[in-house]
Amino acid sequence: MSTNKHKSDEQQSQPIGIIAGGGRLPVSLCEAVIKSGKDVFVCALEGFADPDLNNYPHRWIEIQSGGEIIEQLKLANCRQIVMIGNVKRPIDGTQTPDSGGPDNTAAQVLNAGGGDDQILSAVAGFLETLGFSVIGAHEIIPENLIANGAVGKHVHTPGNISDIAKGFEVLHVLGNLDVSQAVVVCGGYVLAIEAAEGTDEMLKRVARLRKDGVVHKTGGVLVKRPKCGQDMRFDMPVIGPVTVELVAAAGLSGIVVHADNVLCHDRQGLIKRADELDIFVEGAIPSTNGKVAS
Amino acid sequence: MSTNKHKSDEQQSQPIGIIAGGGRLPVSLCEAVIKSGKDVFVCALEGFADPDLNNYPHRWIEIQSGGEIIEQLKLANCRQIVMIGNVKRPIDGTQTPDSGGPDNTAAQVLNAGGGDDQILSAVAGFLETLGFSVIGAHEIIPENLIANGAVGKHVHTPGNISDIAKGFEVLHVLGNLDVSQAVVVCGGYVLAIEAAEGTDEMLKRVARLRKDGVVHKTGGVLVKRPKCGQDMRFDMPVIGPVTVELVAAAGLSGIVVHADNVLCHDRQGLIKRADELDIFVEGAIPSTNGKVAS
Repeated sequence: MSTNKHKSDEQQSQPIGIIAGGGRLPVSLCEAVIKSGKDVFVCALEGFADPDLNNYPHRWIEIQSGGEIIEQLKLANCRQIVMIGNVKRPIDGTQTPDSGGPDNTAAQVLNAGGGDDQILSAVAGFLETLGFSVIGAHEIIPENLIANGAVGKHVHTPGNISDIAKGFEVLHVLGNLDVSQAVVVCGGYVLAIEAAEGTDEMLKRVARLRKDGVVHKTGGVLVKRPKCGQDMRFDMPVIGPVTVELVAAAGLSGIVVHADNVLCHDRQGLIKRADELDIFVEGAIPSTNGKVAS
Repeated sequence: MSTNKHKSDEQQSQPIGIIAGGGRLPVSLCEAVIKSGKDVFVCALEGFADPDLNNYPHRWIEIQSGGEIIEQLKLANCRQIVMIGNVKRPIDGTQTPDSGGPDNTAAQVLNAGGGDDQILSAVAGFLETLGFSVIGAHEIIPENLIANGAVGKHVHTPGNISDIAKGFEVLHVLGNLDVSQAVVVCGGYVLAIEAAEGTDEMLKRVARLRKDGVVHKTGGVLVKRPKCGQDMRFDMPVIGPVTVELVAAAGLSGIVVHADNVLCHDRQGLIKRADELDIFVEGAIPSTNGKVAS
Protein backbone atom coordinates (compact mmCIF):
# COMPACT_ATOMS: atom_id res chain seq x y z
CA MET A 1 0.00 0.00 0.00
CA SER A 2 2.94 2.27 0.59
CA THR A 3 3.42 2.83 -3.15
CA ASN A 4 0.05 4.55 -3.31
CA LYS A 5 1.32 7.35 -1.05
CA HIS A 6 3.30 8.63 -4.00
CA LYS A 7 0.26 8.85 -6.24
CA SER A 8 -1.73 12.04 -6.50
CA ASP A 9 -5.23 12.27 -5.04
CA GLU A 10 -6.60 12.59 -8.55
CA GLN A 11 -5.10 9.25 -9.61
CA GLN A 12 -6.44 7.57 -6.47
CA SER A 13 -10.01 8.65 -7.28
CA GLN A 14 -9.79 7.23 -10.79
CA PRO A 15 -10.30 3.49 -11.21
CA ILE A 16 -7.63 1.50 -13.03
CA GLY A 17 -9.13 0.51 -16.38
CA ILE A 18 -8.50 -3.13 -17.19
CA ILE A 19 -9.04 -4.41 -20.74
CA ALA A 20 -9.29 -8.10 -19.88
CA GLY A 21 -8.67 -11.06 -22.17
CA GLY A 22 -8.71 -14.71 -21.12
CA GLY A 23 -7.04 -16.51 -18.22
CA ARG A 24 -6.99 -15.95 -14.48
CA LEU A 25 -4.43 -13.15 -14.44
CA PRO A 26 -6.98 -10.33 -14.99
CA VAL A 27 -8.91 -11.64 -11.96
CA SER A 28 -5.73 -11.72 -9.84
CA LEU A 29 -4.96 -8.21 -10.99
CA CYS A 30 -8.41 -6.88 -10.00
CA GLU A 31 -8.04 -8.52 -6.62
CA ALA A 32 -4.60 -6.93 -6.13
CA VAL A 33 -5.83 -3.47 -7.15
CA ILE A 34 -8.78 -3.63 -4.74
CA LYS A 35 -6.47 -4.87 -1.96
CA SER A 36 -4.24 -1.87 -2.55
CA GLY A 37 -7.21 0.41 -1.85
CA LYS A 38 -7.84 1.52 -5.43
CA ASP A 39 -10.82 0.96 -7.69
CA VAL A 40 -11.01 -0.99 -10.94
CA PHE A 41 -13.21 -0.85 -14.00
CA VAL A 42 -13.05 -3.88 -16.31
CA CYS A 43 -13.74 -3.99 -20.03
CA ALA A 44 -14.22 -7.76 -20.19
CA LEU A 45 -13.67 -9.01 -23.74
CA GLU A 46 -16.52 -11.27 -24.76
CA GLY A 47 -15.48 -14.81 -25.58
CA PHE A 48 -12.18 -14.43 -23.75
CA ALA A 49 -12.50 -12.96 -20.25
CA ASP A 50 -13.14 -14.99 -17.09
CA PRO A 51 -16.75 -14.82 -15.75
CA ASP A 52 -15.33 -14.07 -12.27
CA LEU A 53 -14.67 -10.55 -13.52
CA ASN A 54 -18.42 -10.05 -12.98
CA ASN A 55 -17.44 -9.55 -9.32
CA TYR A 56 -15.87 -6.20 -10.22
CA PRO A 57 -17.33 -3.09 -11.89
CA HIS A 58 -17.32 -4.09 -15.55
CA ARG A 59 -18.85 -4.11 -19.00
CA TRP A 60 -18.73 -7.06 -21.42
CA ILE A 61 -17.59 -5.76 -24.82
CA GLU A 62 -16.63 -7.43 -28.10
CA ILE A 63 -12.95 -7.08 -29.03
CA GLN A 64 -13.83 -5.55 -32.40
CA SER A 65 -15.87 -2.75 -30.73
CA GLY A 66 -12.93 -0.42 -30.17
CA GLY A 67 -15.18 2.64 -29.99
CA GLU A 68 -17.30 1.17 -27.22
CA ILE A 69 -14.26 0.11 -25.18
CA ILE A 70 -13.00 3.69 -25.25
CA GLU A 71 -16.44 5.10 -24.48
CA GLN A 72 -16.80 2.88 -21.42
CA LEU A 73 -13.31 3.64 -20.13
CA LYS A 74 -14.09 7.37 -20.42
CA LEU A 75 -17.49 7.00 -18.71
CA ALA A 76 -15.82 5.14 -15.85
CA ASN A 77 -13.36 8.04 -15.49
CA CYS A 78 -10.32 5.78 -16.07
CA ARG A 79 -6.97 7.29 -16.92
CA GLN A 80 -4.53 4.44 -16.33
CA ILE A 81 -5.20 1.39 -18.50
CA VAL A 82 -3.84 -2.16 -18.28
CA MET A 83 -4.29 -4.55 -21.21
CA ILE A 84 -4.02 -8.09 -19.87
CA GLY A 85 -5.01 -11.69 -20.64
CA ASN A 86 -5.04 -13.88 -23.72
CA VAL A 87 -6.90 -12.95 -26.84
CA LYS A 88 -6.99 -14.79 -30.11
CA ARG A 89 -5.27 -13.01 -32.93
CA PRO A 90 -7.41 -9.94 -33.74
CA ILE A 91 -9.90 -10.28 -36.55
CA ASP A 92 -8.96 -9.28 -40.03
CA GLY A 93 -8.95 -5.47 -40.10
CA THR A 94 -10.19 -5.54 -43.68
CA GLN A 95 -13.55 -7.11 -42.72
CA THR A 96 -16.50 -4.74 -42.29
CA PRO A 97 -18.40 -4.34 -39.00
CA ASP A 98 -21.45 -5.92 -40.69
CA SER A 99 -19.54 -9.11 -41.48
CA GLY A 100 -18.27 -9.38 -37.90
CA GLY A 101 -15.29 -7.14 -38.60
CA PRO A 102 -13.95 -4.34 -36.42
CA ASP A 103 -15.55 -0.93 -36.07
CA ASN A 104 -13.65 2.04 -37.49
CA THR A 105 -11.73 2.57 -34.26
CA ALA A 106 -10.56 -1.03 -34.07
CA ALA A 107 -9.81 -1.27 -37.80
CA GLN A 108 -7.58 1.80 -37.52
CA VAL A 109 -5.18 -0.05 -35.23
CA LEU A 110 -5.66 -3.61 -36.50
CA ASN A 111 -4.64 -2.65 -40.00
CA ALA A 112 -1.20 -1.74 -38.70
CA GLY A 113 -0.28 -5.40 -39.33
CA GLY A 114 2.96 -6.97 -38.25
CA GLY A 115 3.83 -9.03 -35.19
CA ASP A 116 2.12 -9.08 -31.82
CA ASP A 117 4.15 -6.23 -30.51
CA GLN A 118 3.36 -3.99 -33.44
CA ILE A 119 -0.40 -4.56 -33.10
CA LEU A 120 -0.38 -4.03 -29.34
CA SER A 121 1.86 -0.99 -29.61
CA ALA A 122 -0.59 0.45 -32.12
CA VAL A 123 -3.47 -0.13 -29.68
CA ALA A 124 -1.52 1.45 -26.81
CA GLY A 125 -0.41 4.38 -28.95
CA PHE A 126 -3.98 4.97 -30.02
CA LEU A 127 -5.22 4.92 -26.40
CA GLU A 128 -2.51 7.40 -25.42
CA THR A 129 -3.51 9.84 -28.16
CA LEU A 130 -6.92 9.87 -26.42
CA GLY A 131 -5.35 10.86 -23.10
CA PHE A 132 -5.16 7.44 -21.46
CA SER A 133 -1.94 6.20 -19.89
CA VAL A 134 -1.21 2.55 -20.70
CA ILE A 135 0.72 0.80 -17.93
CA GLY A 136 1.93 -2.77 -17.38
CA ALA A 137 0.36 -5.20 -14.92
CA HIS A 138 3.77 -5.62 -13.28
CA GLU A 139 3.67 -1.94 -12.29
CA ILE A 140 0.59 -2.72 -10.19
CA ILE A 141 1.55 -6.21 -8.98
CA PRO A 142 5.38 -6.21 -8.98
CA GLU A 143 5.31 -8.96 -6.34
CA ASN A 144 4.07 -11.30 -9.09
CA LEU A 145 7.29 -11.00 -11.10
CA ILE A 146 9.56 -14.04 -10.92
CA ALA A 147 12.87 -12.97 -9.39
CA ASN A 148 16.33 -14.41 -9.98
CA GLY A 149 16.68 -17.85 -8.37
CA ALA A 150 14.50 -20.83 -7.57
CA VAL A 151 10.78 -20.36 -6.88
CA GLY A 152 10.03 -23.78 -5.36
CA LYS A 153 12.24 -26.35 -3.65
CA HIS A 154 13.70 -27.95 -6.80
CA VAL A 155 16.64 -26.52 -8.74
CA HIS A 156 18.25 -27.25 -12.10
CA THR A 157 21.14 -29.72 -12.36
CA PRO A 158 24.41 -29.14 -14.24
CA GLY A 159 22.95 -31.27 -17.06
CA ASN A 160 20.26 -28.64 -17.69
CA ILE A 161 22.60 -25.67 -18.13
CA SER A 162 23.38 -26.07 -21.83
CA ASP A 163 19.68 -26.54 -22.65
CA ILE A 164 18.80 -23.39 -20.70
CA ALA A 165 21.49 -21.46 -22.57
CA LYS A 166 20.30 -22.79 -25.93
CA GLY A 167 16.71 -21.84 -25.09
CA PHE A 168 17.71 -18.28 -24.27
CA GLU A 169 19.81 -18.12 -27.44
CA VAL A 170 16.90 -19.21 -29.65
CA LEU A 171 14.51 -16.76 -27.96
CA HIS A 172 17.09 -13.98 -28.27
CA VAL A 173 17.41 -14.26 -32.05
CA LEU A 174 13.66 -14.75 -32.53
CA GLY A 175 12.73 -11.96 -30.13
CA ASN A 176 14.73 -9.54 -32.24
CA LEU A 177 12.24 -10.38 -35.01
CA ASP A 178 9.21 -9.91 -32.68
CA VAL A 179 8.58 -13.66 -32.63
CA SER A 180 8.16 -16.24 -29.84
CA GLN A 181 8.38 -16.11 -26.07
CA ALA A 182 8.89 -19.79 -25.30
CA VAL A 183 10.94 -22.77 -26.41
CA VAL A 184 11.54 -26.35 -25.27
CA VAL A 185 15.07 -27.77 -25.40
CA CYS A 186 16.27 -31.25 -24.43
CA GLY A 187 19.81 -32.57 -24.80
CA GLY A 188 20.81 -29.70 -27.09
CA TYR A 189 17.87 -30.42 -29.38
CA VAL A 190 15.11 -27.82 -29.79
CA LEU A 191 11.89 -29.84 -29.52
CA ALA A 192 9.40 -27.01 -30.00
CA ILE A 193 9.20 -23.29 -30.63
CA GLU A 194 6.12 -21.29 -29.70
CA ALA A 195 4.46 -19.04 -32.25
CA ALA A 196 0.72 -18.34 -32.63
CA GLU A 197 -0.35 -21.49 -30.75
CA GLY A 198 0.89 -20.23 -27.36
CA THR A 199 2.91 -21.94 -24.63
CA ASP A 200 0.23 -24.35 -23.39
CA GLU A 201 -0.41 -25.78 -26.86
CA MET A 202 3.32 -26.05 -27.49
CA LEU A 203 3.77 -28.05 -24.27
CA LYS A 204 0.91 -30.38 -25.24
CA ARG A 205 2.69 -30.92 -28.58
CA VAL A 206 5.90 -31.94 -26.80
CA ALA A 207 3.91 -34.42 -24.71
CA ARG A 208 2.46 -35.90 -27.94
CA LEU A 209 5.89 -36.05 -29.63
CA ARG A 210 7.17 -38.06 -26.68
CA LYS A 211 4.11 -40.31 -26.54
CA ASP A 212 4.40 -40.98 -30.29
CA GLY A 213 8.09 -41.81 -29.94
CA VAL A 214 9.25 -38.95 -32.17
CA VAL A 215 11.37 -37.80 -29.25
CA HIS A 216 12.88 -40.45 -27.04
CA LYS A 217 15.11 -38.62 -24.63
CA THR A 218 13.66 -37.63 -21.27
CA GLY A 219 14.13 -34.35 -19.42
CA GLY A 220 14.60 -30.95 -20.95
CA VAL A 221 13.48 -27.44 -20.07
CA LEU A 222 10.88 -24.85 -20.97
CA VAL A 223 12.56 -21.47 -21.38
CA LYS A 224 10.33 -18.39 -21.44
CA ARG A 225 11.11 -14.71 -21.76
CA PRO A 226 9.71 -11.55 -23.31
CA LYS A 227 10.80 -10.70 -26.82
CA CYS A 228 13.96 -8.54 -26.90
CA GLY A 229 12.96 -4.91 -26.72
CA GLN A 230 9.35 -5.89 -26.08
CA ASP A 231 7.09 -3.19 -24.63
CA MET A 232 6.55 -4.63 -21.15
CA ARG A 233 3.16 -2.97 -20.83
CA PHE A 234 1.47 -5.81 -22.67
CA ASP A 235 1.80 -9.40 -23.76
CA MET A 236 4.12 -10.00 -20.84
CA PRO A 237 4.89 -13.70 -20.53
CA VAL A 238 3.07 -15.47 -17.70
CA ILE A 239 3.45 -18.87 -16.05
CA GLY A 240 1.21 -20.51 -13.48
CA PRO A 241 0.27 -23.86 -11.94
CA VAL A 242 -1.13 -25.12 -15.27
CA THR A 243 2.20 -24.37 -16.98
CA VAL A 244 3.93 -26.53 -14.36
CA GLU A 245 1.43 -29.35 -14.93
CA LEU A 246 1.91 -29.24 -18.71
CA VAL A 247 5.70 -29.16 -18.29
CA ALA A 248 5.49 -32.28 -16.12
CA ALA A 249 3.13 -33.98 -18.60
CA ALA A 250 5.63 -33.25 -21.38
CA GLY A 251 8.34 -35.06 -19.41
CA LEU A 252 10.42 -31.93 -18.91
CA SER A 253 12.53 -31.25 -15.82
CA GLY A 254 11.84 -27.59 -15.27
CA ILE A 255 11.06 -24.04 -16.28
CA VAL A 256 13.51 -21.15 -16.54
CA VAL A 257 12.30 -17.60 -17.17
CA HIS A 258 14.03 -14.28 -17.64
CA ALA A 259 14.22 -12.98 -14.05
CA ASP A 260 12.02 -9.94 -13.29
CA ASN A 261 10.50 -10.14 -16.78
CA VAL A 262 7.88 -12.86 -16.47
CA LEU A 263 4.72 -12.75 -14.37
CA CYS A 264 3.61 -15.54 -12.11
CA HIS A 265 -0.08 -16.29 -11.83
CA ASP A 266 -1.04 -17.91 -8.49
CA ARG A 267 2.43 -18.19 -7.02
CA GLN A 268 1.35 -20.43 -4.12
CA GLY A 269 -0.42 -22.82 -6.49
CA LEU A 270 2.58 -22.86 -8.79
CA ILE A 271 5.01 -23.66 -5.96
CA LYS A 272 2.75 -26.40 -4.63
CA ARG A 273 2.46 -28.14 -8.03
CA ALA A 274 6.18 -27.66 -8.85
CA ASP A 275 7.22 -29.18 -5.52
CA GLU A 276 4.79 -32.07 -5.90
CA LEU A 277 5.71 -32.83 -9.52
CA ASP A 278 9.52 -32.51 -9.13
CA ILE A 279 9.69 -29.55 -11.49
CA PHE A 280 12.20 -26.74 -10.97
CA VAL A 281 11.00 -23.19 -11.63
CA GLU A 282 13.67 -20.51 -11.73
CA GLY A 283 14.35 -16.97 -12.78
CA ALA A 284 17.70 -16.42 -14.52
CA ILE A 285 19.42 -13.52 -16.20
CA PRO A 286 20.36 -14.20 -19.83
CA SER A 287 23.52 -12.47 -20.98
CA THR A 288 23.27 -10.01 -23.87
CA ASN A 289 24.16 -12.61 -26.46
CA GLY A 290 21.19 -14.65 -25.37
CA LYS A 291 23.17 -17.06 -23.21
CA VAL A 292 22.49 -17.42 -19.52
CA ALA A 293 25.02 -15.67 -17.31
CA SER A 294 27.05 -18.31 -15.46
CA MET B 1 23.28 -41.30 -68.11
CA SER B 2 26.07 -39.11 -69.42
CA THR B 3 27.27 -38.35 -65.89
CA ASN B 4 28.24 -41.99 -65.45
CA LYS B 5 30.86 -41.68 -68.18
CA HIS B 6 32.97 -39.72 -65.74
CA LYS B 7 32.80 -42.42 -63.10
CA SER B 8 35.49 -45.09 -62.91
CA ASP B 9 34.65 -48.68 -63.78
CA GLU B 10 35.18 -49.62 -60.16
CA GLN B 11 32.51 -47.20 -58.96
CA GLN B 12 30.12 -48.47 -61.61
CA SER B 13 30.38 -52.02 -60.34
CA GLN B 14 29.58 -50.95 -56.79
CA PRO B 15 25.94 -50.40 -55.88
CA ILE B 16 24.93 -47.12 -54.24
CA GLY B 17 24.14 -47.91 -50.61
CA ILE B 18 20.91 -46.28 -49.47
CA ILE B 19 20.11 -46.06 -45.76
CA ALA B 20 16.38 -45.44 -46.11
CA GLY B 21 14.03 -43.82 -43.61
CA GLY B 22 10.35 -43.05 -44.21
CA GLY B 23 8.58 -41.33 -47.10
CA ARG B 24 8.55 -41.86 -50.85
CA LEU B 25 11.84 -40.12 -51.58
CA PRO B 26 14.03 -43.22 -51.01
CA VAL B 27 11.85 -45.08 -53.53
CA SER B 28 12.22 -42.27 -56.10
CA LEU B 29 15.93 -42.30 -55.49
CA CYS B 30 16.23 -46.06 -56.10
CA GLU B 31 14.24 -45.68 -59.30
CA ALA B 32 16.51 -42.84 -60.47
CA VAL B 33 19.68 -44.80 -59.69
CA ILE B 34 18.46 -47.86 -61.61
CA LYS B 35 17.41 -45.66 -64.54
CA SER B 36 20.91 -44.21 -64.64
CA GLY B 37 22.27 -47.73 -65.15
CA LYS B 38 23.73 -48.19 -61.69
CA ASP B 39 22.83 -50.65 -58.94
CA VAL B 40 21.42 -49.98 -55.49
CA PHE B 41 21.49 -51.75 -52.17
CA VAL B 42 18.99 -50.56 -49.58
CA CYS B 43 19.27 -50.75 -45.80
CA ALA B 44 15.57 -50.22 -45.12
CA LEU B 45 15.06 -48.97 -41.57
CA GLU B 46 12.35 -51.01 -39.86
CA GLY B 47 9.34 -49.01 -38.79
CA PHE B 48 10.20 -46.15 -41.14
CA ALA B 49 10.99 -47.25 -44.69
CA ASP B 50 8.42 -47.71 -47.47
CA PRO B 51 7.51 -51.37 -48.26
CA ASP B 52 8.03 -50.61 -51.98
CA LEU B 53 11.76 -50.72 -51.26
CA ASN B 54 11.27 -54.50 -51.31
CA ASN B 55 11.42 -54.13 -55.11
CA TYR B 56 15.15 -53.37 -54.85
CA PRO B 57 18.03 -55.38 -53.37
CA HIS B 58 17.64 -54.68 -49.66
CA ARG B 59 17.79 -55.75 -46.03
CA TRP B 60 15.36 -54.58 -43.32
CA ILE B 61 17.40 -53.45 -40.32
CA GLU B 62 16.54 -51.71 -37.04
CA ILE B 63 17.88 -48.17 -36.72
CA GLN B 64 19.67 -49.01 -33.48
CA SER B 65 21.59 -51.88 -35.14
CA GLY B 66 24.45 -49.74 -36.41
CA GLY B 67 26.82 -52.69 -36.60
CA GLU B 68 24.48 -54.69 -38.83
CA ILE B 69 23.89 -51.73 -41.17
CA ILE B 70 27.63 -51.42 -41.71
CA GLU B 71 28.04 -55.17 -42.12
CA GLN B 72 25.34 -55.31 -44.81
CA LEU B 73 26.73 -52.31 -46.70
CA LYS B 74 30.15 -53.97 -46.73
CA LEU B 75 28.72 -57.33 -47.85
CA ALA B 76 26.91 -55.58 -50.71
CA ASN B 77 30.22 -54.01 -51.75
CA CYS B 78 28.87 -50.45 -51.38
CA ARG B 79 31.24 -47.53 -51.23
CA GLN B 80 28.99 -44.51 -51.83
CA ILE B 81 26.23 -44.13 -49.23
CA VAL B 82 23.11 -41.94 -49.21
CA MET B 83 21.16 -41.41 -45.98
CA ILE B 84 17.64 -40.39 -46.93
CA GLY B 85 14.07 -40.33 -45.59
CA ASN B 86 12.43 -39.45 -42.30
CA VAL B 87 13.35 -41.11 -39.07
CA LYS B 88 12.07 -40.33 -35.64
CA ARG B 89 14.61 -38.79 -33.33
CA PRO B 90 17.16 -41.53 -32.59
CA ILE B 91 16.68 -43.49 -29.44
CA ASP B 92 18.42 -42.46 -26.28
CA GLY B 93 22.07 -43.44 -26.66
CA THR B 94 22.27 -44.18 -22.96
CA GLN B 95 19.82 -47.10 -23.22
CA THR B 96 21.31 -50.59 -23.46
CA PRO B 97 20.74 -52.91 -26.43
CA ASP B 98 18.77 -55.25 -24.11
CA SER B 99 16.27 -52.50 -23.26
CA GLY B 100 15.78 -51.64 -26.93
CA GLY B 101 18.72 -49.25 -26.97
CA PRO B 102 21.39 -48.95 -29.65
CA ASP B 103 24.20 -51.42 -30.17
CA ASN B 104 27.73 -50.22 -29.41
CA THR B 105 28.24 -48.89 -32.93
CA ALA B 106 25.02 -46.86 -32.86
CA ALA B 107 25.55 -45.63 -29.28
CA GLN B 108 28.98 -44.32 -30.25
CA VAL B 109 27.43 -41.80 -32.64
CA LEU B 110 24.10 -41.18 -30.90
CA ASN B 111 25.80 -40.07 -27.73
CA ALA B 112 27.30 -37.15 -29.61
CA GLY B 113 24.08 -35.26 -28.73
CA GLY B 114 23.20 -31.84 -30.09
CA GLY B 115 20.97 -30.81 -32.99
CA ASP B 116 19.96 -32.84 -36.02
CA ASP B 117 23.00 -31.80 -37.95
CA GLN B 118 25.41 -32.79 -35.24
CA ILE B 119 23.91 -36.28 -34.93
CA LEU B 120 23.84 -36.85 -38.68
CA SER B 121 27.35 -35.44 -39.12
CA ALA B 122 28.51 -37.87 -36.47
CA VAL B 123 26.90 -40.77 -38.34
CA ALA B 124 28.44 -39.64 -41.66
CA GLY B 125 31.84 -39.08 -40.07
CA PHE B 126 31.72 -42.54 -38.55
CA LEU B 127 30.81 -44.14 -41.90
CA GLU B 128 33.69 -42.30 -43.57
CA THR B 129 36.21 -43.57 -41.02
CA LEU B 130 35.17 -47.05 -42.22
CA GLY B 131 35.99 -46.17 -45.83
CA PHE B 132 32.50 -45.30 -47.06
CA SER B 133 31.83 -42.09 -48.94
CA VAL B 134 28.62 -40.33 -47.81
CA ILE B 135 26.99 -38.36 -50.60
CA GLY B 136 23.77 -36.34 -50.90
CA ALA B 137 20.67 -37.50 -52.80
CA HIS B 138 20.84 -34.31 -54.87
CA GLU B 139 24.20 -35.46 -56.26
CA ILE B 140 22.39 -38.46 -57.75
CA ILE B 141 19.10 -36.78 -58.68
CA PRO B 142 20.01 -33.09 -59.28
CA GLU B 143 16.93 -32.76 -61.50
CA ASN B 144 14.81 -33.05 -58.31
CA LEU B 145 16.20 -29.81 -56.88
CA ILE B 146 13.78 -26.86 -57.04
CA ALA B 147 15.37 -24.15 -59.17
CA ASN B 148 14.90 -20.38 -58.96
CA GLY B 149 11.44 -19.35 -60.18
CA ALA B 150 7.93 -20.79 -60.28
CA VAL B 151 7.40 -24.54 -60.44
CA GLY B 152 3.71 -24.57 -61.41
CA LYS B 153 1.51 -22.00 -63.12
CA HIS B 154 0.80 -19.80 -60.07
CA VAL B 155 3.19 -17.13 -58.78
CA HIS B 156 3.36 -15.00 -55.64
CA THR B 157 1.74 -11.56 -55.53
CA PRO B 158 3.37 -8.35 -54.26
CA GLY B 159 1.40 -8.86 -51.04
CA ASN B 160 3.38 -12.04 -50.30
CA ILE B 161 6.84 -10.53 -50.58
CA SER B 162 7.21 -9.23 -47.02
CA ASP B 163 6.01 -12.57 -45.60
CA ILE B 164 8.51 -14.45 -47.75
CA ALA B 165 11.28 -12.13 -46.57
CA LYS B 166 10.25 -12.55 -42.93
CA GLY B 167 10.18 -16.33 -43.32
CA PHE B 168 13.72 -16.40 -44.69
CA GLU B 169 14.84 -14.03 -41.93
CA VAL B 170 13.44 -16.29 -39.19
CA LEU B 171 14.98 -19.40 -40.76
CA HIS B 172 18.29 -17.61 -41.19
CA VAL B 173 18.68 -16.78 -37.50
CA LEU B 174 17.40 -20.20 -36.40
CA GLY B 175 19.49 -22.08 -38.95
CA ASN B 176 22.61 -20.55 -37.46
CA LEU B 177 21.63 -22.39 -34.27
CA ASP B 178 21.00 -25.69 -36.15
CA VAL B 179 17.24 -25.33 -35.64
CA SER B 180 14.25 -25.42 -37.99
CA GLN B 181 13.85 -25.68 -41.76
CA ALA B 182 10.31 -24.34 -42.14
CA VAL B 183 8.11 -21.47 -41.00
CA VAL B 184 4.64 -20.10 -41.80
CA VAL B 185 4.15 -16.34 -42.06
CA CYS B 186 0.96 -14.40 -42.78
CA GLY B 187 0.59 -10.64 -42.80
CA GLY B 188 3.92 -10.12 -41.04
CA TYR B 189 2.90 -12.49 -38.28
CA VAL B 190 4.78 -15.76 -37.74
CA LEU B 191 2.04 -18.37 -37.28
CA ALA B 192 4.23 -21.42 -36.75
CA ILE B 193 7.84 -22.50 -36.56
CA GLU B 194 8.89 -26.07 -37.23
CA ALA B 195 11.04 -27.93 -34.73
CA ALA B 196 10.88 -31.67 -33.86
CA GLU B 197 7.33 -32.11 -35.19
CA GLY B 198 8.31 -31.63 -38.85
CA THR B 199 6.72 -29.58 -41.63
CA ASP B 200 3.58 -31.67 -42.14
CA GLU B 201 2.59 -31.52 -38.48
CA MET B 202 3.32 -27.78 -38.40
CA LEU B 203 1.01 -27.22 -41.38
CA LYS B 204 -1.76 -29.25 -39.72
CA ARG B 205 -1.35 -27.02 -36.66
CA VAL B 206 -1.82 -23.89 -38.77
CA ALA B 207 -5.00 -25.40 -40.23
CA ARG B 208 -6.26 -26.02 -36.66
CA LEU B 209 -5.33 -22.48 -35.51
CA ARG B 210 -7.41 -21.10 -38.37
CA LYS B 211 -10.31 -23.48 -37.77
CA ASP B 212 -10.32 -22.58 -34.06
CA GLY B 213 -10.29 -18.87 -34.88
CA VAL B 214 -6.92 -18.22 -33.19
CA VAL B 215 -5.78 -16.83 -36.53
CA HIS B 216 -8.32 -14.99 -38.65
CA LYS B 217 -6.37 -13.60 -41.57
CA THR B 218 -6.27 -15.65 -44.74
CA GLY B 219 -3.30 -16.25 -47.00
CA GLY B 220 0.31 -16.50 -45.95
CA VAL B 221 3.27 -18.58 -47.06
CA LEU B 222 5.27 -21.63 -46.11
CA VAL B 223 8.98 -20.85 -46.35
CA LYS B 224 11.40 -23.77 -46.33
CA ARG B 225 15.17 -23.92 -46.57
CA PRO B 226 18.10 -25.90 -45.21
CA LYS B 227 19.72 -24.65 -42.05
CA CYS B 228 22.56 -22.19 -42.70
CA GLY B 229 25.78 -24.11 -43.15
CA GLN B 230 23.88 -27.39 -43.11
CA ASP B 231 25.70 -30.41 -44.50
CA MET B 232 23.65 -30.97 -47.66
CA ARG B 233 24.40 -34.68 -47.68
CA PHE B 234 21.55 -35.36 -45.27
CA ASP B 235 18.36 -33.99 -43.82
CA MET B 236 17.88 -31.97 -46.97
CA PRO B 237 14.46 -30.30 -46.95
CA VAL B 238 11.89 -31.91 -49.22
CA ILE B 239 8.48 -30.88 -50.50
CA GLY B 240 5.98 -32.91 -52.49
CA PRO B 241 2.29 -33.14 -53.45
CA VAL B 242 1.28 -33.75 -49.82
CA THR B 243 3.05 -30.55 -48.75
CA VAL B 244 0.98 -28.64 -51.31
CA GLU B 245 -2.23 -30.23 -50.03
CA LEU B 246 -1.43 -29.38 -46.42
CA VAL B 247 -0.51 -25.81 -47.41
CA ALA B 248 -3.88 -25.46 -49.13
CA ALA B 249 -5.71 -26.99 -46.15
CA ALA B 250 -3.98 -24.44 -43.89
CA GLY B 251 -5.38 -21.62 -46.04
CA LEU B 252 -1.95 -20.49 -47.20
CA SER B 253 -1.26 -19.02 -50.65
CA GLY B 254 2.01 -20.67 -51.51
CA ILE B 255 5.38 -22.22 -50.82
CA VAL B 256 8.77 -20.59 -51.28
CA VAL B 257 11.97 -22.59 -50.90
CA HIS B 258 15.66 -21.74 -51.10
CA ALA B 259 16.38 -22.30 -54.80
CA ASP B 260 18.66 -25.28 -55.57
CA ASN B 261 18.65 -26.28 -51.91
CA VAL B 262 15.37 -28.12 -51.48
CA LEU B 263 14.40 -31.44 -53.06
CA CYS B 264 11.11 -32.04 -54.77
CA HIS B 265 9.47 -35.42 -54.41
CA ASP B 266 7.18 -36.33 -57.34
CA ARG B 267 7.49 -33.09 -59.29
CA GLN B 268 4.64 -33.89 -61.69
CA GLY B 269 2.29 -34.69 -58.83
CA LEU B 270 3.33 -31.53 -57.02
CA ILE B 271 2.71 -29.33 -60.07
CA LYS B 272 -0.68 -30.95 -60.69
CA ARG B 273 -1.88 -30.38 -57.12
CA ALA B 274 -0.41 -26.85 -56.93
CA ASP B 275 -2.12 -25.84 -60.17
CA GLU B 276 -5.43 -27.38 -59.08
CA LEU B 277 -5.36 -25.88 -55.59
CA ASP B 278 -4.21 -22.36 -56.59
CA ILE B 279 -0.97 -22.69 -54.67
CA PHE B 280 2.24 -21.06 -55.90
CA VAL B 281 5.46 -23.04 -55.48
CA GLU B 282 8.69 -21.17 -56.10
CA GLY B 283 12.40 -21.30 -55.61
CA ALA B 284 13.99 -18.03 -54.47
CA ILE B 285 17.45 -16.93 -53.43
CA PRO B 286 17.58 -15.42 -49.95
CA SER B 287 20.18 -12.70 -49.50
CA THR B 288 22.92 -13.25 -46.93
CA ASN B 289 21.04 -11.40 -44.20
CA GLY B 290 18.19 -13.87 -44.56
CA LYS B 291 16.02 -11.60 -46.69
CA VAL B 292 14.94 -12.59 -50.17
CA ALA B 293 16.88 -10.89 -52.94
CA SER B 294 14.58 -8.53 -54.80
